[in-house]
Amino acid sequence: MSDLHYTVGVIGLGLIGGSMALDLKRRGFAREVLGVEQDPVAAEAAKTIGLVDEVVPYEDCINRADIIVVAVPVGAAVKMVPDILNHFGEEEKIVIDVCSTKSQICHATQYHPRRAQFVSTHPMAGTEYSGPWAAQPGLFDGRACIFANSEESSPKALKTIEELYAVLNMRPIYMNADQHDVHTAYVSHISHVTSFALALTVLDKEKDEKHIFDLASGGFSSTVRLAKSNADMWVPILSQNHDNILHVMDTYINKMQQFRDAIATYDEAKIRELIQEANRIKKILR
Amino acid sequence: MSDLHYTVGVIGLGLIGGSMALDLKRRGFAREVLGVEQDPVAAEAAKTIGLVDEVVPYEDCINRADIIVVAVPVGAAVKMVPDILNHFGEEEKIVIDVCSTKSQICHATQYHPRRAQFVSTHPMAGTEYSGPWAAQPGLFDGRACIFANSEESSPKALKTIEELYAVLNMRPIYMNADQHDVHTAYVSHISHVTSFALALTVLDKEKDEKHIFDLASGGFSSTVRLAKSNADMWVPILSQNHDNILHVMDTYINKMQQFRDAIATYDEAKIRELIQEANRIKKILR
Repeated sequence: MSDLHYTVGVIGLGLIGGSMALDLKRRGFAREVLGVEQDPVAAEAAKTIGLVDEVVPYEDCINRADIIVVAVPVGAAVKMVPDILNHFGEEEKIVIDVCSTKSQICHATQYHPRRAQFVSTHPMAGTEYSGPWAAQPGLFDGRACIFANSEESSPKALKTIEELYAVLNMRPIYMNADQHDVHTAYVSHISHVTSFALALTVLDKEKDEKHIFDLASGGFSSTVRLAKSNADMWVPILSQNHDNILHVMDTYINKMQQFRDAIATYDEAKIRELIQEANRIKKILR
Repeated sequence: MSDLHYTVGVIGLGLIGGSMALDLKRRGFAREVLGVEQDPVAAEAAKTIGLVDEVVPYEDCINRADIIVVAVPVGAAVKMVPDILNHFGEEEKIVIDVCSTKSQICHATQYHPRRAQFVSTHPMAGTEYSGPWAAQPGLFDGRACIFANSEESSPKALKTIEELYAVLNMRPIYMNADQHDVHTAYVSHISHVTSFALALTVLDKEKDEKHIFDLASGGFSSTVRLAKSNADMWVPILSQNHDNILHVMDTYINKMQQFRDAIATYDEAKIRELIQEANRIKKILR
């Protein structure tokens, strides 16, 4: 593992970018961490908190960094990664993205002449909070990191980024970008949509029933937690992963409808069957 | 607060009954705790774990206990509470229930000649686990306890049960039974249904996609956690709270449909509006 070797540039000093910046510096992977942040309040906070050594303009970051981490919402990242590759000269710089959808960004870079210097990853960690204030050390420890279409990266670039994620204590999983987007629709994106819908449902009711939240218990809080998630991040995810999300949502709405019908007809045997089938999730969750 | 005063009988030694038994004895409210448990394996476990002093037959419990806690699923409780009241003689025994729906049990006892000796409560605490193995000390500390239709209980019985919940460190809230069932449909029951539906959706997909759960992150786990909940408990809740649950489910399905339509038409402005509206849940959750 390289010691104090790289200058790492992090573009987007939010939860993910900020947390990576912290641990890559503290754990000696980065000699220096440069940050790029277009929101001046967030930029100032990132400096005050000490997430990065220096906040620099976008072009300076590309010029000075050996490894550039693109940690902006996926709609912006899809344009930014090819632009960064366009800036690369003969030196062996690497750019990575950390977005939650992988198909579109992999397709957008597929035929780029410097594609080999791009490594597309999805470190599967996070919280429902956002911004530099949400960054925390150890966020990635023990979690999975997806490498999407890794055969399109040069072996040397891939190895360097594998080292980077090893420093973050992440478990690598290699996967086709399209397959990744199917899987995350099921085990991440739908959870967010169901939480948003739950929050909307309850907030609607609150308009005419004050004090309804006096009764909110731990179960409600955990189910609705993801509804705090940031629109800037989630609008492009839901929009980009359009086909997969719609497919999962249709299955989900169908399951809700089955429950509704069973309850509406007092069919307790059917309610029991649905719950017991759902209970099989126990074998999966630890 | 009474010290080592009461013999408390707990019928149903699961998560709630078992946890109450533990703390009422440890904190000196109960001189003796008798348990009734029809499942012999659970009964044996309750004795081994030490949840109760003695496991006794149903009739013995009614005869010997000063306060009887009915902690069985709500379908059974609706029949059991009137039956226990039928057994009461001139002595000032009290029976309480701890069920998650309150309308039906309050209606079923409304005109009972001994109604004043019944206190209907809903201690709002729990986990997704069940059985005597799930019982834990401190489960109720700091949570809310609903007293439903408390004006139908005698002041003396009510005062004794207020003391009981004070020992469990619960915050009392007084509420009409029907109102309770509307509120819990929103802040508890719907969360369970959405978790069950999410589990069913993902388990369906798992049939043809192995390893899908390698990618499950903390967000998914927290959203789907309630899907582990026990059918014996939840079938009668969903069935009894029929009208309220259907009303909430219809609102919820409508919200999901709004999301679906916005995603299907790539209407990013609408997706953003829905997410930002859902984000208002932040002001409620701490």
